[in-house]
Amino acid sequence: MTVSPESYFTTFTDDVSNKDLYESEWVPKIQAYRKKLVAAIPSEYRLSKDLVAATKANNFNAIQFMRDQALLTAREIELTEFTAAKLSSLIASGALTSVELFQAFAKRACIAHQLTNCAMDIFVPEGLARAQELDKIFAETGKVVGPFHGLPVSIKEHYGYKGKITHGAYVSLLDSVSEETADVTQTMMNLGAVFFIRTSQPQCLMHLDSNNNVTGLTMNPYNLGLSPGGSSSGEGALGAFRGSVFGIGSDIGGSIRTPAAFSGCNGLRPTSLRVSLTGAVGPSPGQESVKCVVGPLSAYIEDLQFFMDHYLNDGKPAVQDPTLVPLPWRKTSPVSGQKIKVGIMSDDGIVKPLPPIARGLQHARAALERLPNVEVVDFLPIKTQLAYDTVHQMYNADGNRGQKNLLKGSGEPLVALTKWALAYGKGDAALSVHENQDLNYIRDNLRAEYTKFMEDNGIDFLLTPTYNNVAPLHEKVYNWSYTSLFNLLDFPTLAFQTGLFQDPIQDVKGEHQCRGPLEELEWGLYEPEKFAGAPIALLLAGKRHHDEQVLQFGKHIQDAMMQ
Amino acid sequence: MTVSPESYFTTFTDDVSNKDLYESEWVPKIQAYRKKLVAAIPSEYRLSKDLVAATKANNFNAIQFMRDQALLTAREIELTEFTAAKLSSLIASGALTSVELFQAFAKRACIAHQLTNCAMDIFVPEGLARAQELDKIFAETGKVVGPFHGLPVSIKEHYGYKGKITHGAYVSLLDSVSEETADVTQTMMNLGAVFFIRTSQPQCLMHLDSNNNVTGLTMNPYNLGLSPGGSSSGEGALGAFRGSVFGIGSDIGGSIRTPAAFSGCNGLRPTSLRVSLTGAVGPSPGQESVKCVVGPLSAYIEDLQFFMDHYLNDGKPAVQDPTLVPLPWRKTSPVSGQKIKVGIMSDDGIVKPLPPIARGLQHARAALERLPNVEVVDFLPIKTQLAYDTVHQMYNADGNRGQKNLLKGSGEPLVALTKWALAYGKGDAALSVHENQDLNYIRDNLRAEYTKFMEDNGIDFLLTPTYNNVAPLHEKVYNWSYTSLFNLLDFPTLAFQTGLFQDPIQDVKGEHQCRGPLEELEWGLYEPEKFAGAPIALLLAGKRHHDEQVLQFGKHIQDAMMQ
Repeated sequence: MTVSPESYFTTFTDDVSNKDLYESEWVPKIQAYRKKLVAAIPSEYRLSKDLVAATKANNFNAIQFMRDQALLTAREIELTEFTAAKLSSLIASGALTSVELFQAFAKRACIAHQLTNCAMDIFVPEGLARAQELDKIFAETGKVVGPFHGLPVSIKEHYGYKGKITHGAYVSLLDSVSEETADVTQTMMNLGAVFFIRTSQPQCLMHLDSNNNVTGLTMNPYNLGLSPGGSSSGEGALGAFRGSVFGIGSDIGGSIRTPAAFSGCNGLRPTSLRVSLTGAVGPSPGQESVKCVVGPLSAYIEDLQFFMDHYLNDGKPAVQDPTLVPLPWRKTSPVSGQKIKVGIMSDDGIVKPLPPIARGLQHARAALERLPNVEVVDFLPIKTQLAYDTVHQMYNADGNRGQKNLLKGSGEPLVALTKWALAYGKGDAALSVHENQDLNYIRDNLRAEYTKFMEDNGIDFLLTPTYNNVAPLHEKVYNWSYTSLFNLLDFPTLAFQTGLFQDPIQDVKGEHQCRGPLEELEWGLYEPEKFAGAPIALLLAGKRHHDEQVLQFGKHIQDAMMQ
Repeated sequence: MTVSPESYFTTFTDDVSNKDLYESEWVPKIQAYRKKLVAAIPSEYRLSKDLVAATKANNFNAIQFMRDQALLTAREIELTEFTAAKLSSLIASGALTSVELFQAFAKRACIAHQLTNCAMDIFVPEGLARAQELDKIFAETGKVVGPFHGLPVSIKEHYGYKGKITHGAYVSLLDSVSEETADVTQTMMNLGAVFFIRTSQPQCLMHLDSNNNVTGLTMNPYNLGLSPGGSSSGEGALGAFRGSVFGIGSDIGGSIRTPAAFSGCNGLRPTSLRVSLTGAVGPSPGQESVKCVVGPLSAYIEDLQFFMDHYLNDGKPAVQDPTLVPLPWRKTSPVSGQKIKVGIMSDDGIVKPLPPIARGLQHARAALERLPNVEVVDFLPIKTQLAYDTVHQMYNADGNRGQKNLLKGSGEPLVALTKWALAYGKGDAALSVHENQDLNYIRDNLRAEYTKFMEDNGIDFLLTPTYNNVAPLHEKVYNWSYTSLFNLLDFPTLAFQTGLFQDPIQDVKGEHQCRGPLEELEWGLYEPEKFAGAPIALLLAGKRHHDEQVLQFGKHIQDAMMQ
């Protein structure tokens, strides 16, 4: 490796870390927070020290371990692996109680947390009480309170939750107790969802990784030596573990899609303004050049559909939250019978995918070519470097003011990828308003250009890598180009599992003449044996507001690949 | 009057005007442009010099004049005064040709232009050729090309029109020929609309008035001594004259609603991102803190509904324009039978309405109180000064860079209200990105606060003034508070006619202790006899995306007031 990430760190100054302040005032709070988190695991769900010790092996697959060790009963496995729709109908018919379901998921989630450190907050007794209350309502009325009645769900920690600390992985917010519950959470509660776990995220919310000073690293469930992705890190790990039916993350550059892809589940970054962000902690709430978008992660694509359908059509979130567009979740015509054209972008010209991703794309292409009525074409990148430069300047348009305000409150040390993120764009040098406006205009023109190209060429979907590799090493993930492109375009994109996994034998590193320092940095990190067993996932994007079609066709491809 | 507008002009410098450049290079182009515009009136539609001379009287009502002088035949009057729906059905049934309809509207529009100077571009032969073509298609196929088949429509000049100059009232763009037709225009063409006139707007597009160096003032049809409003000045005048079935304007601070209100027609500022702005000329295309919104003006509220319904549901503009939200025009349940609560804000605390507007509000209240199932409550202003300050800072967030770039290309002199607009917010001193982001956050919180208040109190609509007065004197309109509030909130708002007109006898100026210099400035301008005959219009606002309900209930109030 000839390029170091440090060579990028010239555009910002660490004028926020303050060792004295951090150690004297905040470290004790962090310790108390961590203790409380350990204590939150009910004793009946605790793993023995021996079991935990066994996980220290290289390339350790924690999901396989859960199965091999029979940590769950057959009934618990069965219940937690039903789809949301099945569970909802079992509960609505009286064949399943919310309490039984809750206990199975709570146990599975607690196991997931003990193996991957995916939670920042666990409150099983509250969840149980809510499940009991829901059973009581059902017993008394014969009716469910809504389509999510009794479904145990999860949410990234940075959404406000009344009466609980909400810190967003900023140490300075460790005393900050939410006065309100975030809109998305409240809507899900109103529909009957049961909350009991809030999941991890990295410092500054801007890593495709998990490290933070509050709870440390989250581990990849399929290979504990790897990153779960981020910033919805815990959601990725928990979703892959099926520790909740579905969970909620947020994505401004890949933060739903990389944890889904890396950890081994599926995640939708919807078109902006469909799911509410109101009530979430973040560095720059008025930054809207590239919008932070909220969406679901789950082991099953059907469950993403189930969430979006009922959240939008029954929850009607736009009534309460005027930032949203009141677009219902629309029934799409079945994929079979339609002629579909898929453009595959197998290399965006910025960082060529490494061997496992290239293999995933080949398999996907072959599966698509076997499908009737599907045409596959190559999609050559359109101005991807311009898109990359534009969106990365937007992230730090305020010269890191929002981030630094939150970081300096505690003086916490900057972890490696926070430095990477603060160096984006012009770093500490804020843009001027007119520079920012010019970037917005470039963004709108790129949206128009991609849309026009797809319309003119009859292309319905783009199939691309999620990232140039499978799950990266902890704290070593630099390239956002494949995901951030679609944040800039505001195209709905699904990260979905292919059913394939990295294999050091098959996925040997070939020769490639790197085209720039970022590619060199990323390619320099690939040593096949370190990534064994990491899930291979891809990205499916559709035109703006075609979220429904993206999920439907994504399921279609996934089924075809897993046949 | 103790306050002068000039006392506000301290925040910007006129470093763009260049007399030599302007006079040597651009004045000849302006003269040529004006000559061409005069020549564009077909000889059979030209008014005699005597007729034009008669209009020089004080408080001259040009619409009454058109009727009194029988400038149109009874058949022309009949045709041009049918609703869009009626015309559309007459054409679709073969009972009316596009050519006959076109000739009636073209004549009426050309009369309107000669009396009010409302056009910047007239091309009757092209419109006629298109009408002939549409008749031919109908004769051959028995079908209309779309719901707008044969309807003569108008559009503000700043929308690109392939092969025609599009200058947006910036002299520097007088050589600029559009390579593309704007999306909204193209969609309307696809639906069968016939274009033949493009309407006037003020310099810099940021006056609630009309003056510009290209074509000068537009006059108010009901009182030529008054302003038609702006910036969709010509659309207001033409709409009141019924020179087109409906026309398209744009609104970032009142630019659809004040011309509709002042000139004597109706105009909808829809929720943002429903109607396409793509392909329009403007000073800061990447400015999106307060969005420029496109919408229709017409003599009839039904025709606004007709436009929105068919434009959205048949035109499907979001397919081509990815900036839009693909929300259809939804059928609303009939107003009768619903319980409706209307909050009346009779004074926003910034500038109290002058007597004619206060009278309009009283009449509206009385009419509403007579309606079954309607409850009227007083709505006290919520943080209107904060809203005012926020939105006015947003307008000039770039420190006038976009405006000045367009103005200095020609060195054209700044007209009075351009100076007023350039002095908004921090004027030439650009905001920083973080200041701009902070304003966005304030905006979102205000949207949430208004929405929550309305939800909590069951208020469906807000009824307010459009402006503190009826149509102002030319180049003397300073206060945007009543309209710009709803730009900041992004609430759909309808400016609608009450059927009342200013009357110097009734609308005498009472005592009022002004609460600030802006109010003093506005109140100082009111001399009842100058405003005789000016239409009294009001504003109806609904929650975001409740455009359908706003038009429906607006029609309901208007009917009640005109009974």
